[in-house]
Amino acid sequence: MGFYDLYDAMLPGEEQDLVAAAGDFCQGEFSAHLLESHNKGQPYDAVWIHKWARAGFLGLQTPREFGGHDASFVCKIRVAQTMAEHSFAAAFALNNLQGSATRVARSGSDKQRDALLQGMLSGAILCAPAMSEPGGGSDLGALTTSARRVDGGWLLTGTKSWITNGQIIRCANLLARVIGGAQAGQDIASFLVPLEDGATFRREEIHMPGAQSFRLSHLIFEGHFVPEWSLFNPPGEALKASMASVNAARVHVAAMCVASTRAALREAVDHAQSRHAFGKPLIRHQGMAWELAEVSLRLEAANALVWRAAAAIQAGAPALALAAQAKKFAVDVALWGIDQCLRAMGATGASAAHRLALQSAETRLAAFGDGTSEMLLERIGKELAKEYGLPPIQQGKASA
Amino acid sequence: MGFYDLYDAMLPGEEQDLVAAAGDFCQGEFSAHLLESHNKGQPYDAVWIHKWARAGFLGLQTPREFGGHDASFVCKIRVAQTMAEHSFAAAFALNNLQGSATRVARSGSDKQRDALLQGMLSGAILCAPAMSEPGGGSDLGALTTSARRVDGGWLLTGTKSWITNGQIIRCANLLARVIGGAQAGQDIASFLVPLEDGATFRREEIHMPGAQSFRLSHLIFEGHFVPEWSLFNPPGEALKASMASVNAARVHVAAMCVASTRAALREAVDHAQSRHAFGKPLIRHQGMAWELAEVSLRLEAANALVWRAAAAIQAGAPALALAAQAKKFAVDVALWGIDQCLRAMGATGASAAHRLALQSAETRLAAFGDGTSEMLLERIGKELAKEYGLPPIQQGKASA
Amino acid sequence: MGFYDLYDAMLPGEEQDLVAAAGDFCQGEFSAHLLESHNKGQPYDAVWIHKWARAGFLGLQTPREFGGHDASFVCKIRVAQTMAEHSFAAAFALNNLQGSATRVARSGSDKQRDALLQGMLSGAILCAPAMSEPGGGSDLGALTTSARRVDGGWLLTGTKSWITNGQIIRCANLLARVIGGAQAGQDIASFLVPLEDGATFRREEIHMPGAQSFRLSHLIFEGHFVPEWSLFNPPGEALKASMASVNAARVHVAAMCVASTRAALREAVDHAQSRHAFGKPLIRHQGMAWELAEVSLRLEAANALVWRAAAAIQAGAPALALAAQAKKFAVDVALWGIDQCLRAMGATGASAAHRLALQSAETRLAAFGDGTSEMLLERIGKELAKEYGLPPIQQGKASA
Amino acid sequence: MGFYDLYDAMLPGEEQDLVAAAGDFCQGEFSAHLLESHNKGQPYDAVWIHKWARAGFLGLQTPREFGGHDASFVCKIRVAQTMAEHSFAAAFALNNLQGSATRVARSGSDKQRDALLQGMLSGAILCAPAMSEPGGGSDLGALTTSARRVDGGWLLTGTKSWITNGQIIRCANLLARVIGGAQAGQDIASFLVPLEDGATFRREEIHMPGAQSFRLSHLIFEGHFVPEWSLFNPPGEALKASMASVNAARVHVAAMCVASTRAALREAVDHAQSRHAFGKPLIRHQGMAWELAEVSLRLEAANALVWRAAAAIQAGAPALALAAQAKKFAVDVALWGIDQCLRAMGATGASAAHRLALQSAETRLAAFGDGTSEMLLERIGKELAKEYGLPPIQQGKASA
Repeated sequence: MGFYDLYDAMLPGEEQDLVAAAGDFCQGEFSAHLLESHNKGQPYDAVWIHKWARAGFLGLQTPREFGGHDASFVCKIRVAQTMAEHSFAAAFALNNLQGSATRVARSGSDKQRDALLQGMLSGAILCAPAMSEPGGGSDLGALTTSARRVDGGWLLTGTKSWITNGQIIRCANLLARVIGGAQAGQDIASFLVPLEDGATFRREEIHMPGAQSFRLSHLIFEGHFVPEWSLFNPPGEALKASMASVNAARVHVAAMCVASTRAALREAVDHAQSRHAFGKPLIRHQGMAWELAEVSLRLEAANALVWRAAAAIQAGAPALALAAQAKKFAVDVALWGIDQCLRAMGATGASAAHRLALQSAETRLAAFGDGTSEMLLERIGKELAKEYGLPPIQQGKASA
Repeated sequence: MGFYDLYDAMLPGEEQDLVAAAGDFCQGEFSAHLLESHNKGQPYDAVWIHKWARAGFLGLQTPREFGGHDASFVCKIRVAQTMAEHSFAAAFALNNLQGSATRVARSGSDKQRDALLQGMLSGAILCAPAMSEPGGGSDLGALTTSARRVDGGWLLTGTKSWITNGQIIRCANLLARVIGGAQAGQDIASFLVPLEDGATFRREEIHMPGAQSFRLSHLIFEGHFVPEWSLFNPPGEALKASMASVNAARVHVAAMCVASTRAALREAVDHAQSRHAFGKPLIRHQGMAWELAEVSLRLEAANALVWRAAAAIQAGAPALALAAQAKKFAVDVALWGIDQCLRAMGATGASAAHRLALQSAETRLAAFGDGTSEMLLERIGKELAKEYGLPPIQQGKASA
Repeated sequence: MGFYDLYDAMLPGEEQDLVAAAGDFCQGEFSAHLLESHNKGQPYDAVWIHKWARAGFLGLQTPREFGGHDASFVCKIRVAQTMAEHSFAAAFALNNLQGSATRVARSGSDKQRDALLQGMLSGAILCAPAMSEPGGGSDLGALTTSARRVDGGWLLTGTKSWITNGQIIRCANLLARVIGGAQAGQDIASFLVPLEDGATFRREEIHMPGAQSFRLSHLIFEGHFVPEWSLFNPPGEALKASMASVNAARVHVAAMCVASTRAALREAVDHAQSRHAFGKPLIRHQGMAWELAEVSLRLEAANALVWRAAAAIQAGAPALALAAQAKKFAVDVALWGIDQCLRAMGATGASAAHRLALQSAETRLAAFGDGTSEMLLERIGKELAKEYGLPPIQQGKASA
Repeated sequence: MGFYDLYDAMLPGEEQDLVAAAGDFCQGEFSAHLLESHNKGQPYDAVWIHKWARAGFLGLQTPREFGGHDASFVCKIRVAQTMAEHSFAAAFALNNLQGSATRVARSGSDKQRDALLQGMLSGAILCAPAMSEPGGGSDLGALTTSARRVDGGWLLTGTKSWITNGQIIRCANLLARVIGGAQAGQDIASFLVPLEDGATFRREEIHMPGAQSFRLSHLIFEGHFVPEWSLFNPPGEALKASMASVNAARVHVAAMCVASTRAALREAVDHAQSRHAFGKPLIRHQGMAWELAEVSLRLEAANALVWRAAAAIQAGAPALALAAQAKKFAVDVALWGIDQCLRAMGATGASAAHRLALQSAETRLAAFGDGTSEMLLERIGKELAKEYGLPPIQQGKASA
């Protein structure tokens, strides 16, 4: 069985071609550039975003009528995995832009589509979701960014944090609390906010050593005007809409973790085959072989679980617990597994000659996006009774 | 998604009925008896083997022409899982008898079938494979039991060890080295050996505290005569035949581990919902909920991996690495997970009132049958190059 | 460095002799009997308690004026470790009796000493603490056993659970809530309660498969009369007195876990040296050697941490966090480590021929006594700010 | 008990002053600079080496007669831990220079001391050991660098790899195989080699993303002339001399790992106290508190084990297994523990605002220096029989 067989068996030929094309795109020059950039402590060059757009991938899930591929969820996952073998951050960040385009195409108003969609597909208008705030990533209910109604639109005030591609986007899909007129808990709306640095908007870059390709930024709004047509989800519906996609997002991150870990294992196995110590290849030393075997089997477990969650998402089945379980497990396996591969290679594994330091630093951020491990355990914990709370297998008598 | 959905989706309605019937069989009286026996340090009563036979389950995979159900591999797994939720040992030991019947039905000679098959299906002639020897469980090449040609048959000499149901079987499917006539490495044959305690054959019970339901025994042969027709696999073919089924056997054990762990989790979740401390149910204490959530997610990973391996076996795809990975991982999750559940329940979890001590002691033996963890890592290690040894993702330059 | 050197360096020659005498006691007949009893699912014979008493060990910490040895805390630990290498349960249960004698000798009234002490030292009156109740082991504040004042004494009503030696003790040192006269939170007293089965008192044995040597029992009081002189700690002081010794008790349990694990490792190393596979001793197979090496290093870490906690207790230094950390870690290492040793030995490791199944089943209960792992994490969590909450090492600027 | 109490109790007042002075040195400007450099992907400025030298720390263990402090091993450890709380790499690299000075002072010839020692103490002549080669870090016997006798000295040819401070040192203490005249296995000598880039010597920088403060380099010699007086250990003695200090070096690395992990935990606890979510400080959320509690207890275990190993080294006791166990365990705890702290802080933990990414990337290299984890397991595995191979605790009978 090939590593990705279960996913690929779900794809029509056309989507398999998309995956293959994404693979071709990533090989060679782009792959080399990703590693070089990481080694210099810089994000990859934004020109690659435009190349990716030109290759049609920012429209991966956009309906065909608007010029996209209307690809399935599993196809999206496979495209992302293909890139994540080279760089988790690039795969995460490019898909993030793609998802925003898809959202506008599928749920935007005509006006929004007219204003933004072609730009988003061509890469001219990069757009990203903006949900977190500095105070508390995970506690969305504590949101403080506000939208005050004014003539012809709203004035936004507040700070959004940890925004992927935040340093370069020209548009944010942003959650804010509408002041007045809506009852508490029903006042959160979302807006498609054009971003141009100026008196009422600025960015503050967040330096993430080793993970600069996420281009994280704070977005700071101080009475920033957005026009009428920007309203995306009206008050009371934005949070729900965000939640609707969170399971899919978690599985997607998990799938990229699996791909990055597989790439690390390939690199470690290759090294262990080609280097010799004490008279034979490293991989012929039993202890070393067992270490890598253990990585392989946890990786296969993660792969199987992620696929199962992906298939549930694709089928529209409920997947709240499953998606959270898949993400928590895949992230744990990735952080542990990449580190094991790195250690198994000796000091060279951590050097610029290999991609392990990149994968290690970048996948670490997978633990934070779309639900920290703590949030996921909390979620799963709340589902335990439903998922496993059947009457237990027959019990005995306590006393003799 | 139900826990066993992926397996069940592969079963025709008839096989789903078999699984349901097995479930009914295990509930109630049998389940209670299994726990009581464990608590007394005894194996379950052998009368249950006969009931199981009468219900047709010893013929689960025997072809229909001989009176069996000709069930698929995945169906066999689901039947075993159903029982393993009550007792890993019972599920393991009863399937072991079933497998021997299947082997005789499918590969035996007419004479062997005539002599044994109906007895095996009815439970009158219990038969089990006998491969291990005292010296080294895993090193089959070091086999020392010998078969010397005599008039009308062979004389067997040697000791077989760790034989499941060894205390009660009346027939063993046994590996021995034929003396003379065959070149080294091509001299291992298998025999269907009728067992009757006497001058040339005796058993030595192996006491496994907490795991008596395996009824392990040494079988000791001292010039024991077996008739001509007993030869099952001729010299040179027996080892290969044994190996042919080892992947399926590993996945089967892994699948039972998953089921036993799920039963433990159900018991722990039920306990955490019904017991209170510091003013609320245990499961509402965040730390406790997270502990059980972590068990649940590793269990789901094991379940997904085992299913993937089972589907490969069912499809006849190569599964050497995958089966070994699934078994190693499922055993690890079971031993750790059952123990976590037990600890989460406090001292009561380890008492006779619950099934956790039983599952913990019995699944421990899952680590030894059909390949110890060490053997599995060795196997997987040897496959690493093939499975993950593609040219690695592009590398960088070592020096700045 | 010898394994117990750091402890032993703290003992005067006289105490070293006590440790040596305990070692001699455990070797040979007693050791064999402990294993045989476990293999039969029975507790060891109570006659050994009397032999242990006659050898003077129930007076290990009793002041010399009352006929004891007045031994130090570290000496007590070493004596317990010596026995725990043979059986964790026996070491735990015998020390439990010893501790009760010490408490009466040190803090009892003259009347209590006159009534009980010599009997406790000789083994004629076995006495144990009784704190837990069925509802919630860890939530002492939820205690419901009551003591109602009557002429000449009190009437006790309630159930005590998980009482070590509960099946055989003739006296319990028991916590109860005195009805009337004391304000809530200040109403918990302790009593030395003579136990004779009858109309107002009975025992209910708790069956713990594999761990019968704890002789756990519920003690059920229904208007049970205790005389005036039984009051041990007056209302408001009993809980504090219990808490005063809990750190020492945790370190003591941790120390026994370390000893039991070391015994398991000795057994596994011995096996790996004497058994051969594929042409050399198991211990010469790199994978196996590394597995046991990993056990050894975590065991050494536990040993060093436990010693550090023991030295703090002995010195009277605050050790709330340290004792909890030592117990949590030592229990985790024991449960994992004994299981690793058992697995490394193959199926024989789990058989009655070895002491691993005994140690595995008995040390499991170490996780529950004197604070479950959950209680310990809770405790440590509350101390984090104090122990590690210094101003952190200098931080950087968030943004580039 | 303070975290470093056991170490500090071994230091005379004078050495305690040295530790305090090192603490003062590291605070403030240096600490800030270390973090800023890391965030820029650069090594810290070499000017700090000269400041450290001027403060007398490069002579920490140099005998007083030559102007050093003649400090004890444990004092050296404490000084290194003090700096390792700010940066593992800086502490490792500065101590590396100090160790070379100590070696020349203690074992060098008069000529060598005259030529080098004052420069080494003042920081004018930085010198480091050079043992590894590109082919195989751990397999010293496979050494290929050669020294050929010529008039007035030797000609060196070969490559040394992974040399800490290799980019800036002006002297290397280097192992080479002397050609001719010595029998195989007795031909390895060491030399104090002045380094000046030129026709016969050059450096090749090794880029280690996130860990540039090690300034790793290959040193490439092509017929490089070294004068007569450079010979440090004559053929046959160099390997033994290297081995003599390896236990101490391992404990030293382990001690720094402990310090870096403690700094990470302080940062995480501080964060969890000051940040709020869902209405209370993070540390009051039970799940989060338990996660950090688990880090704290493994950290304490590592600390206790490392101290035990350090005390053995200081006392001159055999510590081969103990030093290897301490290093393996401390590195594992550091890599896991720093990562746990980082994850517990959410995305901010990985940003330039905190020191966790620095500590994570730098301690990773602790796994490679002075014995990889694989080498350590190998070493410990070989000692198992000696350390734990006593006759095992009494065994039972195999059969019932």
